[in-house]
Amino acid sequence: MSDRIFNFGAGPGVLPESVLKEAQRDLWNIAGSGIGICEHSHRGKVFDKVINEAEQVCRDLAGIPGNYKVLFLQGGASLQFAMAPMNLLPKGGTADYLVTGVWSEKAVKEAKLFGTVHEAATGKGSKFTRIPAAADIKYSPSPAYVHFTSNNTIYGTQWRSEPAPPSGVPLLCDASSDIYSRPIDLSKYGLIYAGAQKNLGPSGVVLAVIRDDLVERAPKDLPVMLQYRTAVAERSLYNTPPTFGIYMMGLVFKWIRDTGGLAAMAERNEAKAKLLYDALDESKHFTVPAEAGSRSLMNVCFRGPGEEMENRFIAEATKRGFEGLKGHRSAGGMRASIYNAMPRAGVEALVAFIREFDKKEPR
Amino acid sequence: MSDRIFNFGAGPGVLPESVLKEAQRDLWNIAGSGIGICEHSHRGKVFDKVINEAEQVCRDLAGIPGNYKVLFLQGGASLQFAMAPMNLLPKGGTADYLVTGVWSEKAVKEAKLFGTVHEAATGKGSKFTRIPAAADIKYSPSPAYVHFTSNNTIYGTQWRSEPAPPSGVPLLCDASSDIYSRPIDLSKYGLIYAGAQKNLGPSGVVLAVIRDDLVERAPKDLPVMLQYRTAVAERSLYNTPPTFGIYMMGLVFKWIRDTGGLAAMAERNEAKAKLLYDALDESKHFTVPAEAGSRSLMNVCFRGPGEEMENRFIAEATKRGFEGLKGHRSAGGMRASIYNAMPRAGVEALVAFIREFDKKEPR
Repeated sequence: MSDRIFNFGAGPGVLPESVLKEAQRDLWNIAGSGIGICEHSHRGKVFDKVINEAEQVCRDLAGIPGNYKVLFLQGGASLQFAMAPMNLLPKGGTADYLVTGVWSEKAVKEAKLFGTVHEAATGKGSKFTRIPAAADIKYSPSPAYVHFTSNNTIYGTQWRSEPAPPSGVPLLCDASSDIYSRPIDLSKYGLIYAGAQKNLGPSGVVLAVIRDDLVERAPKDLPVMLQYRTAVAERSLYNTPPTFGIYMMGLVFKWIRDTGGLAAMAERNEAKAKLLYDALDESKHFTVPAEAGSRSLMNVCFRGPGEEMENRFIAEATKRGFEGLKGHRSAGGMRASIYNAMPRAGVEALVAFIREFDKKEPR
Repeated sequence: MSDRIFNFGAGPGVLPESVLKEAQRDLWNIAGSGIGICEHSHRGKVFDKVINEAEQVCRDLAGIPGNYKVLFLQGGASLQFAMAPMNLLPKGGTADYLVTGVWSEKAVKEAKLFGTVHEAATGKGSKFTRIPAAADIKYSPSPAYVHFTSNNTIYGTQWRSEPAPPSGVPLLCDASSDIYSRPIDLSKYGLIYAGAQKNLGPSGVVLAVIRDDLVERAPKDLPVMLQYRTAVAERSLYNTPPTFGIYMMGLVFKWIRDTGGLAAMAERNEAKAKLLYDALDESKHFTVPAEAGSRSLMNVCFRGPGEEMENRFIAEATKRGFEGLKGHRSAGGMRASIYNAMPRAGVEALVAFIREFDKKEPR
């Protein structure tokens, strides 16, 4: 029996146990080098292999085209909210943002420091319970790029597929909470970035994939660490990168590959989400605020009939070994995050608990 | 017998073995929570204790005054090279830099993007083999701050004590490679920052300590992630921080405390460095380019009579289990980095090898 419990936290999230076991060993001594992974020079042979393999498997998983650069950055998606416009929004230009929640709003706020932002769609009116339909999106005449947030952890909504930007306009995406949870066609994107701590690894490292023609759009008088061209030119090794995070990301990529790749991952994620949503839809007491076509397969947000019952549910669940079910402080209610590494068994156990709780509840 | 070897790499550097063992356990399940350290929410109770303890022990070790904020940041010292002037160099202002090597030069380059830089002293003329004396330093009339690099990994030089800035002018310091290697009086500093990967932990996290009156000097239209005030206001939790790095730093702080604190650390470091420098000074074949009063206690840089012999020395050392002795590519020669976590036994073994090699060498 494992001494580990089911962690439904929204991030940093659960990691595959096989990855943790490998990391335990390599912390002490990786690849028989006599030196632990955190202690290796980022310019030595051992780490060279680590970062090269991480990039290669990352590329293989999504079939990333050759004209795209894979970067490992720092500062989280929150720093990307600023870096993207610093690099890609020219002076006097306009960028279009599709606003689907708090994270999109934060991205907008940073972009406004560098140029004009046009909100091509916003879900604010519907309390972010739905993803805009194509007809709801009104692009500006000539945007420098279109930015969207593929999955919204706080409201439990997710784009089924990418929005279609005007022809020739680069599509930018914050995919922090659903990257590599399903197959993805990177050729539709100009830039995609994701903090690792939900589907890819520990916090402190960002995966960014950028189309190479965009790299040189940045002004050259930006701080060197805030230009994509620096990371491109130095293959993410301009300065000491977060070596442990890159190492862990590499292990997670291999775990995805070895468990069937992105298509198999998507199947498992769809099945896990269906189990949960079905149980909630069939319940007498629980509701899902997100609209049917917009429901997230990563963060299942749900409510009870009142705060008293919600708190009781969370407390009881915690006692049973289900951790991290409290909804985001700005949304309330419950949230079960079921990222790639959440095993089906965890979801099944939670579903059984939900049904049991629902049945016992009077009314 | 351990399967680990002696790692003299300049960074990421060796970590204490007791810290690695604790991290191995906690990667799987920390504090009996059933969840590994990398998988805990940065807003949950377990991580709250981790970051609070890290900060508290950090404060206790150096007796950090109450009007200083302790921050855990991302992006390495390289991002601080830009953040410091972005926040502390007002438009039209001048900042004074003491240039003692490549890292200082990089800091200058970033600062020039935001204002005027006055090089109050530079060791360029002497190939960075010495730290400027007080008489060599010519400050500008009214600098916004004075910046220096306390230890220079590439040239093996180190300030014995802080430069004295003009009265009332804040002193800024990149202490990446010698922080907490000796007692430090933080009240002399306005801002000190250090990438963790030499003396404090794994790469990917920066320790910054800032005097609180400086925090509000920053313009408010900077990206939110690039303002010190954000990290101050949110106690380094504005977005998901590098949780594993902060955790590891906390363990290293406790290890320093439990092995006697900074004064004991300094004694051990001085003794280790003396062993090495004595062996080199007494040798027939090796020389130390750094001037006597400027020698680093962290990075012992030395040369042989020619590249052929140097390469032979490094190759032979590697075979014997001494890793990371090759000097920086821009300086050549050899470099033994003997940070806090390098045990005296490692230095003794290297000294024995140096003496043996020196004796066998013909001439």
